[in-house]
Amino acid sequence: MNAQPDLAETSRIEAFSDGIFAIAITLLVLELHIPDLEPGERLWPALVDEWPQFGAYLTSFAILGIMWINHHSMFRQIQRADRGLMFLNLGLLLWAALLPFPTNLFAEFLQDEGTDAHVAAAVYSTNLTLAAIFFSAIWWHALRNHLVDHEMTPAEQRSSVLRYSVGTLLYAAAIGLSFISAPITLLVLFLLAVYYGFEQLRTRG
Amino acid sequence: MNAQPDLAETSRIEAFSDGIFAIAITLLVLELHIPDLEPGERLWPALVDEWPQFGAYLTSFAILGIMWINHHSMFRQIQRADRGLMFLNLGLLLWAALLPFPTNLFAEFLQDEGTDAHVAAAVYSTNLTLAAIFFSAIWWHALRNHLVDHEMTPAEQRSSVLRYSVGTLLYAAAIGLSFISAPITLLVLFLLAVYYGFEQLRTRG
Amino acid sequence: MNAQPDLAETSRIEAFSDGIFAIAITLLVLELHIPDLEPGERLWPALVDEWPQFGAYLTSFAILGIMWINHHSMFRQIQRADRGLMFLNLGLLLWAALLPFPTNLFAEFLQDEGTDAHVAAAVYSTNLTLAAIFFSAIWWHALRNHLVDHEMTPAEQRSSVLRYSVGTLLYAAAIGLSFISAPITLLVLFLLAVYYGFEQLRTRG
Amino acid sequence: MNAQPDLAETSRIEAFSDGIFAIAITLLVLELHIPDLEPGERLWPALVDEWPQFGAYLTSFAILGIMWINHHSMFRQIQRADRGLMFLNLGLLLWAALLPFPTNLFAEFLQDEGTDAHVAAAVYSTNLTLAAIFFSAIWWHALRNHLVDHEMTPAEQRSSVLRYSVGTLLYAAAIGLSFISAPITLLVLFLLAVYYGFEQLRTRG
Repeated sequence: MNAQPDLAETSRIEAFSDGIFAIAITLLVLELHIPDLEPGERLWPALVDEWPQFGAYLTSFAILGIMWINHHSMFRQIQRADRGLMFLNLGLLLWAALLPFPTNLFAEFLQDEGTDAHVAAAVYSTNLTLAAIFFSAIWWHALRNHLVDHEMTPAEQRSSVLRYSVGTLLYAAAIGLSFISAPITLLVLFLLAVYYGFEQLRTRG
Repeated sequence: MNAQPDLAETSRIEAFSDGIFAIAITLLVLELHIPDLEPGERLWPALVDEWPQFGAYLTSFAILGIMWINHHSMFRQIQRADRGLMFLNLGLLLWAALLPFPTNLFAEFLQDEGTDAHVAAAVYSTNLTLAAIFFSAIWWHALRNHLVDHEMTPAEQRSSVLRYSVGTLLYAAAIGLSFISAPITLLVLFLLAVYYGFEQLRTRG
Repeated sequence: MNAQPDLAETSRIEAFSDGIFAIAITLLVLELHIPDLEPGERLWPALVDEWPQFGAYLTSFAILGIMWINHHSMFRQIQRADRGLMFLNLGLLLWAALLPFPTNLFAEFLQDEGTDAHVAAAVYSTNLTLAAIFFSAIWWHALRNHLVDHEMTPAEQRSSVLRYSVGTLLYAAAIGLSFISAPITLLVLFLLAVYYGFEQLRTRG
Repeated sequence: MNAQPDLAETSRIEAFSDGIFAIAITLLVLELHIPDLEPGERLWPALVDEWPQFGAYLTSFAILGIMWINHHSMFRQIQRADRGLMFLNLGLLLWAALLPFPTNLFAEFLQDEGTDAHVAAAVYSTNLTLAAIFFSAIWWHALRNHLVDHEMTPAEQRSSVLRYSVGTLLYAAAIGLSFISAPITLLVLFLLAVYYGFEQLRTRG
């Protein structure tokens, strides 16, 4: 009798989270602007000049997409929800929903020659790091409160927590990288998302 | 035979409401603007200067998130829907969906030195008060029309209605506080959302 | 074997439609603009001057909300979906999703003293009329192709089609009224939505 | 025991995809701008002058709507999901979610007399071609990995893959047509969407 409502609750959390991931990923397009051509300027080179916008769009789309797939995988294993899980999940959604803002900031300042490009890249990487921290916290909370649907040995638990921690450290390292080169940071974050995609494709496909 | 469609109806109300909460909470990000730097101005201090925007964003995100969690809890107890419930719920969604506007207004005028900061804070608090009134009305209507899935004693009913009324009064008090200090109103509303989150975490987690 | 997928199909149409209604109703808030104050101007009177924006927001919110509730009621009676139903439903969603544009147009030109207020009101009313036509067409198509879950007598069918046609005629009459007075058209459309709400509350609550 | 979670996974992919289609289709309205009238200019002719905006809106709405219906049909036949399917689906959603940008670009430059109209039309057609390629890839991947719920003969498989390939080639041909005439490209793409709608109406309704 008790299991039914808990299951229902998990599915409503998933539906709400899917909604926010879907909306955030689709709102990214609103940050792409039609070039405002000077007299004599042509559309194609003006679009090419906007490559930071498209690069940031693509990177954030890939990251939010991977985040959604991972969230999906994680919640297939989590069978029960408590209030703590709901609040940690809301924390994750805060950073997912905020991502269009640092995406826009990153695109706007990527080619800035002063330190502003570094600041924009660091703000973007910090947002991702915070999302990764909440991701780890959800999983750690679920394990600790026996919300997961099957028994894991302590070794399996440590290994699964470690995997999330590595992701968090990689994003944190991107904050440091931001102060070396903003374009390289964008490239690394994009490749990281692609790598995560393929890695999971291979191990669990 | 009759119970099935009613259950289905409640779940479609929940899905529609979740959709609006998810969209409103995600649209908040569109009100965050990239700073328009003057020549010689640097990005980081310009971002710091935008703290009212981030404060208002965070507060509205927390409030809409708590509202969603509470809506979720309330509708786990409501098993049947009638037209009255649907219209009261639509009233609640009106104020939830409108929140990005007073959020923006509050952020824009928070540091205004005249009375405009007070007006903006009062408009924001009034929006929250109206949402809280509809919240109470939904619950009161559900109890009165036996839409709740289990029998509550008259004492339990009074206590549950009282709990919603207290929330409404706290938001109404924030309207008054708006005319004393806009930044303190924002801080109090944020802390109230955090408190509600933890309080429910503790009592029902 | 055949009934399952058809039922599933109806529920996915409903979910997609709910999504569009929920998004369109929430996007309305993006058309509300923070007043741009002149030096010496105060916030409160500037907000009051924006009443056409709030009036148009509230009217469109009520209309889309009622439309959603009616869609909900109609699809509780429709048990099977065919391609024709899906395309007619897409036609309805086109006009529902477009509504934020004429809402904005109406709000912007409501106080115009020339004929532009009439044009804006007529564009808004035409949008609503087209939505109502598709509403009637969905119902008529569902009856004609036996997609409805219970037998209706020919008299009941005629009466239900008539009820939708009356709504269509009332919206069409609002196109005419637009050329007499734009503010009265807005008021009448708002009252019509409220009346429809209460009328259905009374007869089916 | 294994079938349940796979089915659940497919339904969550569908829900997420429906969300993105619904949001992208509804965000199109944000690209429609209220005309900014010069003194002495009238609203109605200014709206008529904006026909490229409405034409592009209607075409993209029809295309996204048809895409949703096709996605729906395809996933009624796909019963199991693997990671590869999820990533290919994310690729499709990337181009669906991006469509509001080239729609806006197309509308803005449709009446440009130089080559910019051709570039804008080609960008729009390229977006559609890429979406069609991912559509074909999803189906091809599902067939090849036995994710489809019933046995198809090799001939049926070839015929179904061919049908998707024809769509892709038609969109690719529109890239070529873009360099001849942008308005004709828009018209052809709109008629193609309408034709696809009716064709499917006829063969599977």
